[in-house]
Amino acid sequence: MKLYLGIDLGGTNVKAGIVNEEGKILGKGNVSTNLPCPADEVADKMAEASRLAAAAAGVQLSDLIWAGIGTPGIANTETGVVEYSANLDFDNVPLERMMEERLGLNAFIENDANAAGYGEFCFGAAMGSHKALVITLGTGVGGGVVVDDRIYAGFNYAGAEVGHIVTKQGGRLCNCGRKGCFETYASATGLIRTTKEAMEEHKESLLWQVAPTLDAVDGKTAFDAMRLGDAVGTKVVEQYIEDLATGLTNLLNIFQPEVCVIGGGICKEGDTLLLPLRERVMKEIYLGKNSPAPDIRIAKLGNDAGIIGAAMLGRTRKKI
Amino acid sequence: MKLYLGIDLGGTNVKAGIVNEEGKILGKGNVSTNLPCPADEVADKMAEASRLAAAAAGVQLSDLIWAGIGTPGIANTETGVVEYSANLDFDNVPLERMMEERLGLNAFIENDANAAGYGEFCFGAAMGSHKALVITLGTGVGGGVVVDDRIYAGFNYAGAEVGHIVTKQGGRLCNCGRKGCFETYASATGLIRTTKEAMEEHKESLLWQVAPTLDAVDGKTAFDAMRLGDAVGTKVVEQYIEDLATGLTNLLNIFQPEVCVIGGGICKEGDTLLLPLRERVMKEIYLGKNSPAPDIRIAKLGNDAGIIGAAMLGRTRKKI
Repeated sequence: MKLYLGIDLGGTNVKAGIVNEEGKILGKGNVSTNLPCPADEVADKMAEASRLAAAAAGVQLSDLIWAGIGTPGIANTETGVVEYSANLDFDNVPLERMMEERLGLNAFIENDANAAGYGEFCFGAAMGSHKALVITLGTGVGGGVVVDDRIYAGFNYAGAEVGHIVTKQGGRLCNCGRKGCFETYASATGLIRTTKEAMEEHKESLLWQVAPTLDAVDGKTAFDAMRLGDAVGTKVVEQYIEDLATGLTNLLNIFQPEVCVIGGGICKEGDTLLLPLRERVMKEIYLGKNSPAPDIRIAKLGNDAGIIGAAMLGRTRKKI
Repeated sequence: MKLYLGIDLGGTNVKAGIVNEEGKILGKGNVSTNLPCPADEVADKMAEASRLAAAAAGVQLSDLIWAGIGTPGIANTETGVVEYSANLDFDNVPLERMMEERLGLNAFIENDANAAGYGEFCFGAAMGSHKALVITLGTGVGGGVVVDDRIYAGFNYAGAEVGHIVTKQGGRLCNCGRKGCFETYASATGLIRTTKEAMEEHKESLLWQVAPTLDAVDGKTAFDAMRLGDAVGTKVVEQYIEDLATGLTNLLNIFQPEVCVIGGGICKEGDTLLLPLRERVMKEIYLGKNSPAPDIRIAKLGNDAGIIGAAMLGRTRKKI
């Protein structure tokens, strides 16, 4: 069986995994990124995590077919250079070549959100489709788009910035400088903000029972209050689902994917989130009379999506 | 020199053209669509327009390499069937086969907005790029997206519905049923509506001098009043450009194209529209530090884009 190395480079941890042809992880390695540190040291840590993963899987690095790497920032897939990452303080770092030298394998880089989306496409909730949109609801709203089996990264190799579409012109100020971006409402951070705003306005709400202080609020708080029968918590959840449906429908109207996968911690709510979201999107989506609707599903691979997607990157790439 | 047939099927007219390898139209034919009429008769009219175009160019249909067709609605490019068009009252019409029988040429169908976008991509304002977004500001906001030299039509073959993205949640009611869609503000229809609203609110405005009645308002009215120094007209134009920039930036953040082309009657305003639009978009767009910005340009081919784009459809298609 063919084996591949997948590396998920993050600001906190470097995670590596040995992945087989069926998308199963046979061994993992984890090393702290410990930023700030120079690019050469980051690459050394990535190689170390890779050796740990190989040892855990009981294989040699030389047994592997290739190495794929998901990295924050702008990953130029033609040159193999990370053109920029604020997070890692990378400025034109030739990461592909650096890892090939360290691993003795062909390496392929990709933006991390794209790599994770590709994981769900290859072996997760969008497996078997050809056009998929994978949205992650986290600190922001990240996205990976697959068009005809290939990752769509745009002219700038940054990945589709699906969080930075304004859905409420003049609304909440976003980190990107715009006002009313989708992610200021639909990310976990956005939900937490909406929850806190509701708590400050409604001292009587059971939200205060679920989270005794504002600092204790998380993406689950409003859902928990709703389950307790709290009207304010219910309203927060309904507003959140409406805001999420608005941006998601925008993306579905634009991409018209076969499958749309939603990931991130909030998705642990399962059908409580998915069923009303689907209903709302299906009411709003622009579809031809005889056209199939995109299937909205919850992500399957969790935090492993990045490793698995990275490991599969070589599928559509060539090394000369 | 190789010659191709391009057909632009519309609800009012069927336009055909003989197009050479350099994108020049050598002869045109025009036949009224005269709806409602059955699909067979529409196809007969398309064949008639084609023969007129061939005669005007002094060639035989049998001299041509292939025929490309831009049609309203959902054009399934794999099966050659127009799955649905409300406009034409088409329901699963095998238009590709019907035209092959009538013309004796291989035929290729495509959604009309996509075909027009492809025209600008092949020989218009986006010529020479590989990833382009073409937006037409008309009755609605139409779009054509080219990714790595191929038309992106989504899973449903409907073309990217770029007009139906909500930019003002809860805003103007759109024909699609949503509230606050981009096209309700940024289309020519949207601008006319904004102009009329401003006129009703400001009886003193010079807008009333440019357009003596509300029925006389068009996409030029507010621009003309601005040129007369009218404050209300200026505000309408500024609001229009802001609304256009918001939706356009959304699309640029998502697609990150090399070139973005804007077409439609409003673009006759030239730099009056383009310069402040560019400035606003560049302020809002999400770009990596080392990333090139998309180049925003005004369309070049006008109403011929549909014929020229249709004529080039065979470039990326195969007939077995």
